[in-house]
Amino acid sequence: MDDAFRNDEKAETTRRGFLKTGATVVGGGVAAISGVSAAAAQEGANLPPNVPEWMTHPGADTGTHPYGLPSPFEKDVVRKILDEPKQYSSASSRTPLEKLNGIITPNGLHYERHHGGIPEIDPAQHRLMVYGLVEKPLVFTMDDLRRFPSVSRIHVMECSGNQSFSSKGRTTAGDVMGLVSCAEWTGVPLRTVLEECGVKPEAKWLVAEGADAAAMTRSIPIEKCLDDVMLAYSQNGERIRPEQGYPLRVFVPGYEGNMSIKWVRSLQLREEPIYSREETSKYTDLLTGGKAREFSFVMEAKSIITFPSGGQKLDGKGFWEITGLAWSGSGKITRVEVSVDGGATWQDAELQDPVLSICLTRFRFPWKWDGAPVTILSRATDETGYVQPTIEEIVAVRGKNSTYHNHAIQPWAINENGEVQNALA
Amino acid sequence: MDDAFRNDEKAETTRRGFLKTGATVVGGGVAAISGVSAAAAQEGANLPPNVPEWMTHPGADTGTHPYGLPSPFEKDVVRKILDEPKQYSSASSRTPLEKLNGIITPNGLHYERHHGGIPEIDPAQHRLMVYGLVEKPLVFTMDDLRRFPSVSRIHVMECSGNQSFSSKGRTTAGDVMGLVSCAEWTGVPLRTVLEECGVKPEAKWLVAEGADAAAMTRSIPIEKCLDDVMLAYSQNGERIRPEQGYPLRVFVPGYEGNMSIKWVRSLQLREEPIYSREETSKYTDLLTGGKAREFSFVMEAKSIITFPSGGQKLDGKGFWEITGLAWSGSGKITRVEVSVDGGATWQDAELQDPVLSICLTRFRFPWKWDGAPVTILSRATDETGYVQPTIEEIVAVRGKNSTYHNHAIQPWAINENGEVQNALA
Repeated sequence: MDDAFRNDEKAETTRRGFLKTGATVVGGGVAAISGVSAAAAQEGANLPPNVPEWMTHPGADTGTHPYGLPSPFEKDVVRKILDEPKQYSSASSRTPLEKLNGIITPNGLHYERHHGGIPEIDPAQHRLMVYGLVEKPLVFTMDDLRRFPSVSRIHVMECSGNQSFSSKGRTTAGDVMGLVSCAEWTGVPLRTVLEECGVKPEAKWLVAEGADAAAMTRSIPIEKCLDDVMLAYSQNGERIRPEQGYPLRVFVPGYEGNMSIKWVRSLQLREEPIYSREETSKYTDLLTGGKAREFSFVMEAKSIITFPSGGQKLDGKGFWEITGLAWSGSGKITRVEVSVDGGATWQDAELQDPVLSICLTRFRFPWKWDGAPVTILSRATDETGYVQPTIEEIVAVRGKNSTYHNHAIQPWAINENGEVQNALA
Repeated sequence: MDDAFRNDEKAETTRRGFLKTGATVVGGGVAAISGVSAAAAQEGANLPPNVPEWMTHPGADTGTHPYGLPSPFEKDVVRKILDEPKQYSSASSRTPLEKLNGIITPNGLHYERHHGGIPEIDPAQHRLMVYGLVEKPLVFTMDDLRRFPSVSRIHVMECSGNQSFSSKGRTTAGDVMGLVSCAEWTGVPLRTVLEECGVKPEAKWLVAEGADAAAMTRSIPIEKCLDDVMLAYSQNGERIRPEQGYPLRVFVPGYEGNMSIKWVRSLQLREEPIYSREETSKYTDLLTGGKAREFSFVMEAKSIITFPSGGQKLDGKGFWEITGLAWSGSGKITRVEVSVDGGATWQDAELQDPVLSICLTRFRFPWKWDGAPVTILSRATDETGYVQPTIEEIVAVRGKNSTYHNHAIQPWAINENGEVQNALA
């Protein structure tokens, strides 16, 4: 921005107290209001701006969209399906993290991961059966479940396959880490439903099954089920979207997203896990020497800079606010550090309130770019003291065979033109 | 719900520790899973449920909706335009509070209030001019504004005309109080932009003008502008919707919604307010004796029960969770009381975390309905100690001439059939 109304190039900029670095002019090019000539601009310091075309006639009526939609100018802000790996009906789409602000993901952009497509379920016909090691097997309608006392929690959800170890074809923050989203989930505590059925002492696991064509099935430890798991029917106020499990999903806070079984239709109480495909062949971490980590549920502390990030461009040197997201499946984020020198030194970023448990946390870091090529990184710490590791630290422990649970520090490289690239691609 | 797998009508229900009142069987009718006969149900306590039709074929592909939409079964969950008063392009639509959970309003259901329709604005052409009593008048592009340090806040917004003094035609919670919504707003602090321009000491008011056909114009005290007002460009993560002011709106936390000028194009710094139509003829409170309260900005503490509420029906006596929303323009909600005896006695409801400042707060109250006709009410208190008044208390102070800033306790009457009605209608 610039002074379009006075020719005062030498004006002091002493009021820029908003910059922690207190350093530089914000903004670049000359902005001139449409239709105001340079002469008028210089004379017209106290005149209102000219009238744009869209003020000259009434706009669209209220109720044009009883359920509102984004502006047509935002048509490119959509979930993205990557070309690699090849996608069939077992597929995923990613939240465009680099185009979003704050911590709430709008429902239309919440990431998807399906294994048999998205079923269209009539909620009046949907049932949830609780059976196995319970004193009283029960079948619930949606009305039954909504009659229980409810709970709402703002929580992050992340696919354990988020942040592939391969960066092939991964340009943007969404490409790299877009299988993570955050919403306010409402439902009934699973504990409440289980207490209604009476869990037998020998029940150590709960096996949840989805009503999709894949009958997605996962085992959840009973301790977690009796702690903070919910049977969720709403998301950001309204009913859960079809691709998120309408009309009912399990929500397992802090655990890999695959366990939050969508379209859930049955819960079986058992002595042992069911060792489904999704907890043996998939979603385990193959180590060196042929062993594997299984039931590695918790999504550890992680962060990513969303601005500036891959595919974006800094339009000149000077002040830029670095911002991004951090989260942990273990609780609250307590610290995010940013490096603007390729990891040589680290400085604390500001954490945006509210900082909630198992929730996206927005961080901000004021920065003056000197125009030289640089690599920027972020590193999260959670309330358990866990510090987000480097990729080298993960590989040292696990080797290179695993494709899940990567949560390494993500570097972005900025060149002398201000173009930002994935430093791992 | 009932036991579809064992015929055990006398089973004890001792595990219902989730009820504070510890009292009653949750749920009513007999639920039987589709396709399972009564005989099979009694025998089959450890069998999984039969397969519904939608599991027998792959569902819709990922990416069917790059920007997702609600289930077709939720087609009636939309914003509502009331028949009374008659609506033209100067119109409003209401959030269906009774159909939502939690505190976040999805963007598609955020209430609308327009005075000249919804302009379609190209963000690349949109400009914001700051002029008047500033040292350096400036014109900003959207890119300029987004380059400033940003802030995200979850805040309620409410129209001062919400909760009309007349209940004619007002059936549901949304009808009665649906000109209130809540979202996470992101933008640049107005203070930052004003400091960039240099506010002269004699500037006491800021006049914001919208780029709609009504050129909606309001005066805001400079102290508030330098406190927590923001120029917002995002809402629940994504860009603000067209009907919410795309690409830029003023957001004035806790003040009547009309001051949060949408599609904002200019900010004039002045010694005095501009006394626009919207702060003289409208949005003032006419008292008895011909005087009027003007510049009555703050939206005081308020609450409404959203379940059970007008138009809903309790399907039998027994346990029901009363739930609703409370908020205050003055800060945090500290207490919500519920009466289940027409206001004779009051009991504290549980407040759902997080309780944020100037934000919807969800409250819950476990209740056992004995089947007799009853009137239920809720009453909010905020951190300043302000207690939501009765309509009689408001009328005693202001008389009956005013149409704005009603925030009286809302009663719902439940008859012996469980049907809920607006007790004021």
